[in-house]
Amino acid sequence: MNNFTFQNPTKLVFGKGSIAQLPKEISKKAKVMLTFGGGSVKNNGVYSQVIAALEGYNLVEFWGIEPNPKVETLRKAVELGKAEKVDFILAVGGGSTLDGTKLIAAAIPYAGDAWELVLNPKLIKTAVPFASVMTLPATGSEMNSGAVISNVATKEKFAFHAHFPQFAVLDPEVTYSLPPYQIACGIADTFVHVMEQYLTSPGQSLLMDRWAEGILKTLTEIAPEIDENPQDYDLMSTYMLCATMALNGFIAMGVPQDWATHMIGHELTALHGLTHGESLAIVLPATMTVLSEQKKDKILQYGERIFGITKGSDGLRVAEIIARTEAFFRSLGLHTRLSELNIGEETIAEIERRFDERGVKFGECQNVNGAVARAILECCL
Amino acid sequence: MNNFTFQNPTKLVFGKGSIAQLPKEISKKAKVMLTFGGGSVKNNGVYSQVIAALEGYNLVEFWGIEPNPKVETLRKAVELGKAEKVDFILAVGGGSTLDGTKLIAAAIPYAGDAWELVLNPKLIKTAVPFASVMTLPATGSEMNSGAVISNVATKEKFAFHAHFPQFAVLDPEVTYSLPPYQIACGIADTFVHVMEQYLTSPGQSLLMDRWAEGILKTLTEIAPEIDENPQDYDLMSTYMLCATMALNGFIAMGVPQDWATHMIGHELTALHGLTHGESLAIVLPATMTVLSEQKKDKILQYGERIFGITKGSDGLRVAEIIARTEAFFRSLGLHTRLSELNIGEETIAEIERRFDERGVKFGECQNVNGAVARAILECCL
Repeated sequence: MNNFTFQNPTKLVFGKGSIAQLPKEISKKAKVMLTFGGGSVKNNGVYSQVIAALEGYNLVEFWGIEPNPKVETLRKAVELGKAEKVDFILAVGGGSTLDGTKLIAAAIPYAGDAWELVLNPKLIKTAVPFASVMTLPATGSEMNSGAVISNVATKEKFAFHAHFPQFAVLDPEVTYSLPPYQIACGIADTFVHVMEQYLTSPGQSLLMDRWAEGILKTLTEIAPEIDENPQDYDLMSTYMLCATMALNGFIAMGVPQDWATHMIGHELTALHGLTHGESLAIVLPATMTVLSEQKKDKILQYGERIFGITKGSDGLRVAEIIARTEAFFRSLGLHTRLSELNIGEETIAEIERRFDERGVKFGECQNVNGAVARAILECCL
Repeated sequence: MNNFTFQNPTKLVFGKGSIAQLPKEISKKAKVMLTFGGGSVKNNGVYSQVIAALEGYNLVEFWGIEPNPKVETLRKAVELGKAEKVDFILAVGGGSTLDGTKLIAAAIPYAGDAWELVLNPKLIKTAVPFASVMTLPATGSEMNSGAVISNVATKEKFAFHAHFPQFAVLDPEVTYSLPPYQIACGIADTFVHVMEQYLTSPGQSLLMDRWAEGILKTLTEIAPEIDENPQDYDLMSTYMLCATMALNGFIAMGVPQDWATHMIGHELTALHGLTHGESLAIVLPATMTVLSEQKKDKILQYGERIFGITKGSDGLRVAEIIARTEAFFRSLGLHTRLSELNIGEETIAEIERRFDERGVKFGECQNVNGAVARAILECCL
């Protein structure tokens, strides 16, 4: 096991009716900025619950943080926050609203432009305290310090790490009105978050392996049931808990990580606007295929413990396990091939060029460069 | 799943050589009280590592916190801390040293007697900040707010909850010199911590079940290997991580808990000085037997997932699963029967009397009263 440092201060307030607990968590004296996405929270009752809970607070609202939040939008929120001198921000929405809010919180006390903080997080010295009412289980952003921000002008999409949310309000009932496609993408996103921290080499940590497998197994069990009963409280609370636990550091203690699939997926989103979870469903099986020799032992462990695949030669089992993984994503209703989306050589060449230009090397062996990314993307066709 | 609130602010600094990182975690300006147990840290090199790391700090030492720390001892440390005006406490030792330190930290700023805080933790308004260098993986105290304190005068042993440690330094190498009996008790303690949060009724949380089972399975895998290779770094780091993760709230989200085995075990320790882990190894199989009807479904799930027991009638499987659990404790070299320790009716009657007198009802169904405790203890004979 590798040496590690772990700390996660975020408070979870989880369960039915938990939005009503907001006044316990936010000082009555705070000037609170509420940040929102496109408006779905006005249709599903979340907005009115939040406003009712925060009656008597001094509130200012910022609307319009889009999926894959754009720095161009967030700059407007930063201006508003500076002008209104807000001292708390509550993100009400999904991972994109919260990711955007993490940048807003850091950029309000910063004199320069927000994008500078994405490119160089060391410039972040402080942040306005912030928290979330999470409406879409997927990114895990509610209990980590990371965020992914897009830049329309440069067609770039980068992750950065800064501050943790003070708390996250997680009421599984707010997920009842989610469209099936968003749930499918959220399950895929959660699944791949775990895989990025798990599918490296075996024997790094027996316990972290078991916990990662615990999330993967649970997702494969609940996914078909959620498809049939999207308003089942126990199912949706399990899904919500899985999403949070998949990316809060709990399964990453002392183990190597990969993240190549995410880095390639981010490029697909930056170039074509693919929904994040679907981009991962396309890339992961190909990453497993191209790196199957390097990851073989862990793929075999994963296949046995998650899908019960134990028969046949190593090579046949690896192929079957990758096929089962792709089939799982397809069972969610997601595309798993670039050709289904009319994405081809032009995009592959551009991503290869970007990886080469930046000199990046992703993955637990730091060997996913432009050429390997090309091989993975060709395998997604 | 039940509603829940979760927050755990403790920072883990884990791995080889991590004691050297102490100066990163403690202000150079702090007046630091070091608290110790009986002196084993002077023989295994931990004391000299700590002193070397804290060169230049203003230090005061308190020695002699015993296993099952006694309020009579801790009062002396409180006096010392008040007299020296310490503003940070570092516990260097096992769970008992740290548990005692939690009370010391709370009692230094308190005007009354320390035992009042154990009996009524609501009196705890503040505490001196504290942390630990953990030398014995077992209690999980390094990452939770709980502590168990004994009172010699009254022959009582009670748990209370107050503040979390600021950080925990966990270097698996410091466990290499532990006596096999202490390791055995630590593994049993860790195992039963998980069982208290797990062995209630199934379907409460699919994910928490998987994570609890992940710790249990890992413990059953590493225990025989540790017995043969107590200086294997990967084994001891896995054991250390299991101990911390078993009682930091990570597997308790949204699920009911039991703790009847602990409450009965505490009485055995209070009356006879049994080592905590061994008291649990004696009581748990009996708790499972007496409450087997109430816990049947979860026992069957546990038996299948941890021991692979799937054949036979429910009744036969339950009996086999309980026998396997007791056999696991015996494989650690622990006693599992009161009669082996010449404990009998007199003690059973006293524990029944105490439970009745206090009017307590433990367990997830709040049905473990004096009479049920008697039945469990008779089953331990």
